[in-house]
Amino acid sequence: MVTKLSGKLIERTIMMTDIVYVNGEYVAKEDAKISVFDRGFLMGDAVYEVASVINGKMVDNEAHLARLNRSLGELSIKWPLSREDLVARQEELITRNGLTEGLVYLQVTRGVADREFALPDVEPGLVMFTMLKSILNSSVAEKGIRIITTPDIRWRRRDIKTTSLLPASMARQTALDAGADDAWLVEDGYITEGSSNNAFIVTTDNVLVSPSLAQGMLHGITRKAVLSLAKQEGLKIEERTFTPEEAYQAAEAFSTSASSIVMPVVQIDDRIMSNGKPGPVANKLRALYLEMVVNHGGVADEA
Amino acid sequence: MVTKLSGKLIERTIMMTDIVYVNGEYVAKEDAKISVFDRGFLMGDAVYEVASVINGKMVDNEAHLARLNRSLGELSIKWPLSREDLVARQEELITRNGLTEGLVYLQVTRGVADREFALPDVEPGLVMFTMLKSILNSSVAEKGIRIITTPDIRWRRRDIKTTSLLPASMARQTALDAGADDAWLVEDGYITEGSSNNAFIVTTDNVLVSPSLAQGMLHGITRKAVLSLAKQEGLKIEERTFTPEEAYQAAEAFSTSASSIVMPVVQIDDRIMSNGKPGPVANKLRALYLEMVVNHGGVADEA
Repeated sequence: MVTKLSGKLIERTIMMTDIVYVNGEYVAKEDAKISVFDRGFLMGDAVYEVASVINGKMVDNEAHLARLNRSLGELSIKWPLSREDLVARQEELITRNGLTEGLVYLQVTRGVADREFALPDVEPGLVMFTMLKSILNSSVAEKGIRIITTPDIRWRRRDIKTTSLLPASMARQTALDAGADDAWLVEDGYITEGSSNNAFIVTTDNVLVSPSLAQGMLHGITRKAVLSLAKQEGLKIEERTFTPEEAYQAAEAFSTSASSIVMPVVQIDDRIMSNGKPGPVANKLRALYLEMVVNHGGVADEA
Repeated sequence: MVTKLSGKLIERTIMMTDIVYVNGEYVAKEDAKISVFDRGFLMGDAVYEVASVINGKMVDNEAHLARLNRSLGELSIKWPLSREDLVARQEELITRNGLTEGLVYLQVTRGVADREFALPDVEPGLVMFTMLKSILNSSVAEKGIRIITTPDIRWRRRDIKTTSLLPASMARQTALDAGADDAWLVEDGYITEGSSNNAFIVTTDNVLVSPSLAQGMLHGITRKAVLSLAKQEGLKIEERTFTPEEAYQAAEAFSTSASSIVMPVVQIDDRIMSNGKPGPVANKLRALYLEMVVNHGGVADEA
């Protein structure tokens, strides 16, 4: 499918599937509706998770649900269902959509209430849908992506996975408008995260560097899994801040997320990385991750 | 109506009315629904305005629509209707709900699209509803409110009136949990705004002080109107930052918003203001504003 984005045609690599879960019902996409008084719509009072699906199975779903539990706890939003029932409904949705490879999205909102700023004690809402996406074989990952750096203008609680994604969307669009594919966000001179992913560099002396979670970042599930694999591979790892300038001088760079796994970065601003091709560490970690997923259903621990 | 908020019973002063406008239709509140793929729900990609209604007429609506135009422009969201048609539908909604005093809420979302971070070129959505609220006679304004100060954790583009209101909601709830009514937000040691209003103090030498818009704040419609009235009254005005400590030492304090007009503050953190009663400047400005509204339909210029 081809869609128009800001005047240029780009190939769409993700497609929504037909059946959507809305508060207990499986409905056609066109009938998937929520109240305008849902606080997810009126106040951005909602959290979400996206897990990848490979061979019809969710990847590292336990880790995603553990993070969901943390997000809900930080905001005092209730679980909409028991964890077991939620997983059963994710699986039912995957089955109903016949999804073998792609993504499963879930959003928990605080619920429906008269509009007010105080946090009401209401029943939470749950919306889920799936998306078709080629994950094992990604033509984008084979070529790598170009990124720009742009200021991190997000709120202070980016450790909570909320649906307040307008700053991330603006950063992504700024990248597209600049002819790049994505943006890495810079705060006080240091890279924090990508627009919807975690940032990594490999230094010229082969150290894998990624910003520490102590900087108040989202606890990336794929980030954690990749760090674990890198450790097994005997790579030296540093979880610390780095500047765009250090990234320009790095041997290679990549980002991680549940939907893109390990995505090699071949250009940062005007600087071509690893001769404009995906670097060997990114390729190796991507292959190891996919191998673990296909053979063992995931990598990350619950956390 | 009495509702349960975080374990304590508070009196609800705002009530939703029955008819809601959703994308061209006037529907019953229970039937007011939007697609789960509306970016206002999935990504917080929406802006809003709230105008007060007195004697059946919207107050300073032109200024609200001018600010809406700015919000839409900053985010490249299209107008859902011409300005004239939008006003006609606001008026129709007020009529259908028989609203003589209260609030009219409008929310423009970027629209419905498959979930993606890039900003899609789709048709915007429009949701509007009205709320009953006593504005001319407010028992809360007669007593004044108690506020606490709390860190400002919002994103950098708080000059745009988006629905990313979770940080504001969290601040309000923190205040309620502390036994106060509202919170003023503090960044780098200075007050920026209230949770959903602008902050003012009157110094002991009778200078009216409110943070300058240069601090990247929302352009408060009521704030502007009140500054204009204060100027007419010959008050000395300073638009500049102030600290919580300066606020503690002030002769009086108040906040402004479309829904509360001028709301006297009688306590900031542990400090009792103006002997625990609304101060004379706040009372005077509130009375002047309401007089202008009742007699002339508003105060603010379009801007």
